[in-house]
Amino acid sequence: MNTPVLKEKADLFLKMHHGTRMLVLPNVWDVISARIFEEAGFEALATTSGGISCSLGYPDGERIPRKEMLEAVSRIASRLKVPLSADMESGYGSDEKSMEDLARDVLSAGAVGLNIEDSVKGSRKGNSDASLEDVDFQVSKIKAIRRASESLGVHLVINARCDSILRLRSTDERTKAAAIEQLIERGKAYSRAGADCIFAMFVKEREHIAKVVSSLDSPVNIIVGPGSLPLSELEKLGVARVSFGTSMTRATIGLLRRVGRELRQAGTYGGLADTITHEEMNKLALER
Amino acid sequence: MNTPVLKEKADLFLKMHHGTRMLVLPNVWDVISARIFEEAGFEALATTSGGISCSLGYPDGERIPRKEMLEAVSRIASRLKVPLSADMESGYGSDEKSMEDLARDVLSAGAVGLNIEDSVKGSRKGNSDASLEDVDFQVSKIKAIRRASESLGVHLVINARCDSILRLRSTDERTKAAAIEQLIERGKAYSRAGADCIFAMFVKEREHIAKVVSSLDSPVNIIVGPGSLPLSELEKLGVARVSFGTSMTRATIGLLRRVGRELRQAGTYGGLADTITHEEMNKLALER
Repeated sequence: MNTPVLKEKADLFLKMHHGTRMLVLPNVWDVISARIFEEAGFEALATTSGGISCSLGYPDGERIPRKEMLEAVSRIASRLKVPLSADMESGYGSDEKSMEDLARDVLSAGAVGLNIEDSVKGSRKGNSDASLEDVDFQVSKIKAIRRASESLGVHLVINARCDSILRLRSTDERTKAAAIEQLIERGKAYSRAGADCIFAMFVKEREHIAKVVSSLDSPVNIIVGPGSLPLSELEKLGVARVSFGTSMTRATIGLLRRVGRELRQAGTYGGLADTITHEEMNKLALER
Repeated sequence: MNTPVLKEKADLFLKMHHGTRMLVLPNVWDVISARIFEEAGFEALATTSGGISCSLGYPDGERIPRKEMLEAVSRIASRLKVPLSADMESGYGSDEKSMEDLARDVLSAGAVGLNIEDSVKGSRKGNSDASLEDVDFQVSKIKAIRRASESLGVHLVINARCDSILRLRSTDERTKAAAIEQLIERGKAYSRAGADCIFAMFVKEREHIAKVVSSLDSPVNIIVGPGSLPLSELEKLGVARVSFGTSMTRATIGLLRRVGRELRQAGTYGGLADTITHEEMNKLALER
């Protein structure tokens, strides 16, 4: 672990959560997807656990072995100049010791931030209380990560995700409002435990975003994709950080599906018209 | 190595080179890119060494460690029902023993075919004679792969690539015609050595394709992409097999480049409009 380099990157990354511009983090799953966004000028990147998982042959949701996930993070981080945050799902473990190991291993892999979510591992969408971890337990996990990171001399940027809206089955407005309140309460607790940013998972409506942002002191991460408010509006609402989940991976697979259909139906190559060149591809893989 | 299953897959794959329909092999680089084409009904797939390399952080051209390439092939093959052919570049070695090891390791990874090219490893585009392996040496490599595969009881489908056109710097028609002749001579030698298919790399013009196909007894592989003759015309010309090189990987990175530009310029998500769903993604990663 190159502590001075990691410390510098981590501090830089944390600072980006408190700048005048909103931090926009494309979610990447392999080296080339990361390098094309770095090349495009994005100042930091984040992994998508779902993208990495399906690229390596596992469904989303901690089905991938922890070791393979960390190897993928390491492959990506080792080829980037910009800071990388690793989506570590529920943390691949359920006690404080495993969270301490997680902090160390994420830093060893070269990432300087992580996502940690409060869904119960393997739980399905449904009643939010039943499928969210006990708040005290989640707080203890976050504290353990923070403690381990500080003892290693690097302030790992913790993006604590609250899944109260993701887990909601009901579309009833009062139930939703209660889930937003729950998210705010949890966000406060996660910040006190040492989280640097609160990831308000699947909070999409303008009023809900405004409410979460104004209720929390810490930076707020919103997930975006087709149909979301444009970046400029999110920035005006005070959102500190946006990310994309699996949508970028899913867009590339959507393209391949169109390519396959065109090949089978018309026998032509229109879907392959706008590629990067072979030279550009090699240059992206080479440069660091 | 599950020999009976591999034997059946290899025999099926070889048969596809002699059917009434031209074999169309999308080139894939990870599990999800493979699964979307399998799901679309393609009867077999091939890897792209360039795509695998850049996904894992290496430029094209045997810069990736042999072990990492084989692991990637294994990840993909282990999730597919359909036969997979592995692009093994120049074979990651330069003697007969390493070619025997290659045949065994490709089969152990679960692939039932391989590409082996006659470019001198690390050579640049230029004078074709200087950058192509000595034909006798290339023949000995192909013979070693065939010998090893037969001794293992599985007829590994060898797609022997001749790079005389790829390596050509001149656009002079007579020089090109001579390179086509060279490709045909080499193709004949590679077939005698045990190759099942001759990959006429970068042979694109109708008359050249027709000439190569009519001059060789064995099946011919043509590489296609934007601007190529449509599949129906290639089939009429007697082409047995088409593949795509790195173009599918490069198309997905082209999409990510457009997504990145749109995010930075407009702050919107139009490039992410046509994705597969999260459920579809998980289903692709799960099914086998």
